[in-house]
Amino acid sequence: MLLERDLIQSVGFRNVREGDRVTGFQFRLRMPSYRGMAASLIDGVAVLVGDLVDVPADVPLWTLGGQTLTLDGLWQSEGLRWQLEDAAVVTVPFEGGLPQGVHEVSIELRLRMSYVPEEHQPSVYRVSKHVTLTPEGGAGTFQYGVSLYSFMGDFGTVLDLETALAAVADVGATGVEILGEGHVANYPEPSTAWRDEWFRLLEKYSLQPTNYGSWIDTRLHSSGPHARPMTAEEGAATLQRDLRLAKDLGFRFVRPKIGVVSGDLVPDPIWTESVERSLDLAHELDVIICPEIHSPTPIHHPVVDDYIDLIRRTGTKHFGLLIDTGIFQDRPIPLGPGETRETRPAFLDGIGVDPADFADVAEYVVFVQAKFHDIDENLDDKQIPWRPVLQALKNAGYTGYLSSEYEGVREPWRSIEQVRRQHSLIRSITDTLD
Amino acid sequence: MLLERDLIQSVGFRNVREGDRVTGFQFRLRMPSYRGMAASLIDGVAVLVGDLVDVPADVPLWTLGGQTLTLDGLWQSEGLRWQLEDAAVVTVPFEGGLPQGVHEVSIELRLRMSYVPEEHQPSVYRVSKHVTLTPEGGAGTFQYGVSLYSFMGDFGTVLDLETALAAVADVGATGVEILGEGHVANYPEPSTAWRDEWFRLLEKYSLQPTNYGSWIDTRLHSSGPHARPMTAEEGAATLQRDLRLAKDLGFRFVRPKIGVVSGDLVPDPIWTESVERSLDLAHELDVIICPEIHSPTPIHHPVVDDYIDLIRRTGTKHFGLLIDTGIFQDRPIPLGPGETRETRPAFLDGIGVDPADFADVAEYVVFVQAKFHDIDENLDDKQIPWRPVLQALKNAGYTGYLSSEYEGVREPWRSIEQVRRQHSLIRSITDTLD
Repeated sequence: MLLERDLIQSVGFRNVREGDRVTGFQFRLRMPSYRGMAASLIDGVAVLVGDLVDVPADVPLWTLGGQTLTLDGLWQSEGLRWQLEDAAVVTVPFEGGLPQGVHEVSIELRLRMSYVPEEHQPSVYRVSKHVTLTPEGGAGTFQYGVSLYSFMGDFGTVLDLETALAAVADVGATGVEILGEGHVANYPEPSTAWRDEWFRLLEKYSLQPTNYGSWIDTRLHSSGPHARPMTAEEGAATLQRDLRLAKDLGFRFVRPKIGVVSGDLVPDPIWTESVERSLDLAHELDVIICPEIHSPTPIHHPVVDDYIDLIRRTGTKHFGLLIDTGIFQDRPIPLGPGETRETRPAFLDGIGVDPADFADVAEYVVFVQAKFHDIDENLDDKQIPWRPVLQALKNAGYTGYLSSEYEGVREPWRSIEQVRRQHSLIRSITDTLD
Repeated sequence: MLLERDLIQSVGFRNVREGDRVTGFQFRLRMPSYRGMAASLIDGVAVLVGDLVDVPADVPLWTLGGQTLTLDGLWQSEGLRWQLEDAAVVTVPFEGGLPQGVHEVSIELRLRMSYVPEEHQPSVYRVSKHVTLTPEGGAGTFQYGVSLYSFMGDFGTVLDLETALAAVADVGATGVEILGEGHVANYPEPSTAWRDEWFRLLEKYSLQPTNYGSWIDTRLHSSGPHARPMTAEEGAATLQRDLRLAKDLGFRFVRPKIGVVSGDLVPDPIWTESVERSLDLAHELDVIICPEIHSPTPIHHPVVDDYIDLIRRTGTKHFGLLIDTGIFQDRPIPLGPGETRETRPAFLDGIGVDPADFADVAEYVVFVQAKFHDIDENLDDKQIPWRPVLQALKNAGYTGYLSSEYEGVREPWRSIEQVRRQHSLIRSITDTLD
């Protein structure tokens, strides 16, 4: 397990209940010193949350090593420790709890250092952070999940598998989506130890595997003197390798990302035979193959028609559509450094598919990737119009997963807070849909 | 294991040898995509190193999964993969290798994405980074080590234990120093699994445990209605707990950081009895207790005289001095945000102890912490005058460890490169001492 760099951790910021009553809120704190220390060296933490909460340093309760104590309890403790590797849980009594959404949490933490002259003691740490309360609401309409794709750049540098899954569970998600070639160590042949750990973590964090991303790399051998195209047989073998691995890891959906042959993402013609050769296996494994409809491909497009045609032609229940909500993006992604509107692909401005179009293909949609790029501290999404999108999904009777795909700026740890904001946003909207 | 955020990893940048010849250099690359991929999808990497090296994309060799191949070899490979979790090793033939020090390494990496329209292919990644070659030289004069204190803030957020130890070993260090209350999980009672892992990693990375930092927290119960001072008996019990744990983990030195009673860091008077009660145990365990001489305490100071007096009085071989090179700092640490020269402790400007003073206490010095704050890409240390310091250590016959303590700006991953720079600097100076 790893901790977030900020002292105030996003993961773990939640209301707390006693029976039916919400009695306060809590958050996790990383030790600011370079060492862990005895709990009796803590001189408390004052907490301010916007203009809602302002409590002095002796009010919050501390949970360390599974024990919850008052400040006086810490002072009297013997042997209890705030370990460097463990976040302390700070609980603030606040009847009714905090409202859903993003809060500015400020702390003044006091620690006694025996090796610092008394005149400079206690050591005081003052930090503030915008943090999103663990989202609630939205139950009964959709299911909520997170793709580990959201953590691109963070996964493997600031997040290990357990830390990532803990962050997913902490948004209240029940489903986790992965990329086989990214999140399965030693893909396509994970060790028994890795597989055991995967299932241990799913159980620990109460997560269900949802969709498994795979690739049919049609350009696998397109460079060099021995270049040659991929055959449908090879495409099928690739897909079937991933179907088996996905099933083995508990997944119900496999999204093959198929090589393209045109600027508007028309898939390589081998896709049809690759899929059709694999339908029996998908049936046997009870896994649904679902290529994604991804910007710049809109819902009304020959590629989608071809997918639907395959379903009708074969009558299969093991092939369906995955909708990436990036197709509904109706405002541009900000230009990156050195980027111009003219030189970057036009679809980054948003192709603005009408959410109402969803109804036309809803009967074939088996999974939704909730793509997004930037949500500010007022829960304002800068690119995706969630209210009409979610209303259209609900109107069309979609009750499956909304699986977060954060695709914004890749600053370390940013993804964790962005995913929390998205879940807070989509759940609060869902509660107020018609 | 975790990877550094930059695509070009600092850890692993080194010259390579075939027998007695240096035939080139190599570095590790993190996969820039959000997925791992088949090796045949790599279209090579062009490498530029300052004005020394400029090779096109088909020249470097690639090591993936233990196999080293040419670009053509990658294209013909089947089943070989660049896993998301593994850095690729790029080897550039360059007779004689690179000179020691910091180099600006630039790459242009090309990868084929089957799902991106041909007109935007291959995907090209251009990055540059100042990286320090794994230091060589300096052998036979001192021993070289690193304290995990150097990684404060990084340890537990971007470095796990193995990644940290790998970074230590990669500077060519043979010794590792830790803080018991920081780097031993569940201190003071690590699990058997943790202890087994500790020894496995020491062996894997060929590292010797050197010094173990501990604390005698004299203010352990100095807050609240039941406040009371620490007794010498409690101080001794604390020290002895750490002596036993240090020995159990293979350490030869224990630095107790003792609570202070004055602005110039005079230790609490219980230190004498706490130490004297522990000398028999230190003898039995063959561990040397060594309080540190740390800025603002200079070498010629009553505190140091008292330590030496204890050695003379008891005749012990298990108590000595640890010198922190921060006492030789002769230029100021830059002001932090909101900090002024007037409000911060004056010693941050440097107390500038004359390195020649070292000779006066050398017979009692058992360990040196090589404290530093900032070394630029020209290997210019902005605070510590290494040449006179190292010359004084050599003149006085010190042949023990120089154990890096980076104490500069705590930006994620900065410590890794700073420690490399320090070792490069002190080893190159050591080779040219009188």
